[in-house]
Amino acid sequence: MRALLLFALLLAGCSSKEPEKKKEVAVDPLPSWNNTATKKSIVDYVTKISKQGSKEFIPMEDRIATFDNDGTIWAETPVVQLFFTEVQSQDMGLKHRPIEDMNKKEINDLFVKTHTGMTDESFTREVKDFFTEVKHPQLNVPFNKTVYKPQLELMKYLAQNGFKIYIVTGGTADFMRVVSKDFYGIPPEQVIGSGFEHRYDEPRNSLMREPKLEATQAREAKAYNIQEAIGKRPVFAVGNVRSGGDIYMLRYSQGSSYPNFQLLVNHDDANREFAYQEKDGVSLLWAQKYKWNILSMKNDWKTIFPN
Amino acid sequence: MRALLLFALLLAGCSSKEPEKKKEVAVDPLPSWNNTATKKSIVDYVTKISKQGSKEFIPMEDRIATFDNDGTIWAETPVVQLFFTEVQSQDMGLKHRPIEDMNKKEINDLFVKTHTGMTDESFTREVKDFFTEVKHPQLNVPFNKTVYKPQLELMKYLAQNGFKIYIVTGGTADFMRVVSKDFYGIPPEQVIGSGFEHRYDEPRNSLMREPKLEATQAREAKAYNIQEAIGKRPVFAVGNVRSGGDIYMLRYSQGSSYPNFQLLVNHDDANREFAYQEKDGVSLLWAQKYKWNILSMKNDWKTIFPN
Repeated sequence: MRALLLFALLLAGCSSKEPEKKKEVAVDPLPSWNNTATKKSIVDYVTKISKQGSKEFIPMEDRIATFDNDGTIWAETPVVQLFFTEVQSQDMGLKHRPIEDMNKKEINDLFVKTHTGMTDESFTREVKDFFTEVKHPQLNVPFNKTVYKPQLELMKYLAQNGFKIYIVTGGTADFMRVVSKDFYGIPPEQVIGSGFEHRYDEPRNSLMREPKLEATQAREAKAYNIQEAIGKRPVFAVGNVRSGGDIYMLRYSQGSSYPNFQLLVNHDDANREFAYQEKDGVSLLWAQKYKWNILSMKNDWKTIFPN
Repeated sequence: MRALLLFALLLAGCSSKEPEKKKEVAVDPLPSWNNTATKKSIVDYVTKISKQGSKEFIPMEDRIATFDNDGTIWAETPVVQLFFTEVQSQDMGLKHRPIEDMNKKEINDLFVKTHTGMTDESFTREVKDFFTEVKHPQLNVPFNKTVYKPQLELMKYLAQNGFKIYIVTGGTADFMRVVSKDFYGIPPEQVIGSGFEHRYDEPRNSLMREPKLEATQAREAKAYNIQEAIGKRPVFAVGNVRSGGDIYMLRYSQGSSYPNFQLLVNHDDANREFAYQEKDGVSLLWAQKYKWNILSMKNDWKTIFPN
């Protein structure tokens, strides 16, 4: 609490040009977070790197934050893009075994069939319809209610402190881009992910979506994708425990020449969300080895969902 | 001139909240441009799409502009990244025939040898040294003096009117990212280009540059790269005549659902810059067919270089 107050005072001192901001920062920026060590670490970090003149100060242009999507900023049971795949396959009348019984190749085939063969514009409309018409099968709410409220606050807090925030998804970028602005306030060009190859259909002047995924999607690939899209290491990286998909993104940020921060979300709250573990435990092992912050949904979050 | 005045009045009318901007817009935003039809088209376009309430208005978040780099915003004789390749190959003691005698494969091999095998961080340092130490071989000035002054003004003018500007280069993004901010005011994450494959070197926590170019670099690929990086079509696209490398980027922007603008730079000024033509004339053919604005360096630009 002292750190928060200090932070509020600091900002109030700096913001003489923008008096309308004073009210905003004087209140707790993370009300859905419990006052645990995790919250304190975040606020301490943001405070120290924003302090002009200190040797830990990071220039605005280098305050890059990257967030994984599934299981980090919204619920991933089921993985939303796979659920979309199922809904589309039904609309298209594709017969198949239940997705949970399928092997990787079968899932990939179904994924490609439901995501390609149309223009980008048509695909965008399909995704828009899905998010408008379909509800989360377990939580029975529209998908904008399956985002994690504490993470919305964290993203807002970072943005207010000059961070440029990217979503780095294991799914395809085009899927998340349809809702990133509405759900998270992140513009589509700040979504990084995999994608399909394209073919230029000139008489139509459209990009046709071809049945070939362009990139692998997780692990090391997240670092490659960040390098390709941004060209610098993030200083703040957030991922979650499930498949080890985010470990290289967190590790990559740890190589920044600036002070940096890694946060790993642990799904340990069966009552309010879902509890699950990783087969090989690699994410938690790396977190321990490299001293990342581990977030317990159960202990660190006061509320999880928006309502 | 009337359009300019009207524009200034319009903006002055809108900017009651930011009185310090009045002075800026009351002056000609494009002083290095002659008062030709090309300049008028640009100003008319920017004016109409910025006019709140009009049916041609474009929301700020969709004002995306894409500029090719070589020959569009700086001189491409020689192509700067190829000249860098030559300088590096000498530093590395690589024996080879003169680049102008080499075939494509030989050039590509030399390119790969001078650009890979190190970490991203080392490569960035090499590029920084090059731009600090080496001068343009014909113009005999540092490379920041080989940018086109009128284009700097155009980019500034667009930025002041809410455009987000991307450089879409035929070269590798990492090369341009080192100077994009200094030379053009464009942050590195708004540079789109090709790149090399990477390998995660974990004990070192670095991305190693692998000897394989990841993507083709021009023509249709520019549209694919824009789609992948931004996820929406630009409304303002600028390229140049040399190899047809920019025609799909301009065409892609023409499929935007918003009013859009295409500008093709023609190198017709042997006295002040370089005059050259395209073998198959495809860029000018498309410009004619699709009614793009053709910019004559000779007639449309009052000055070309910064000094």
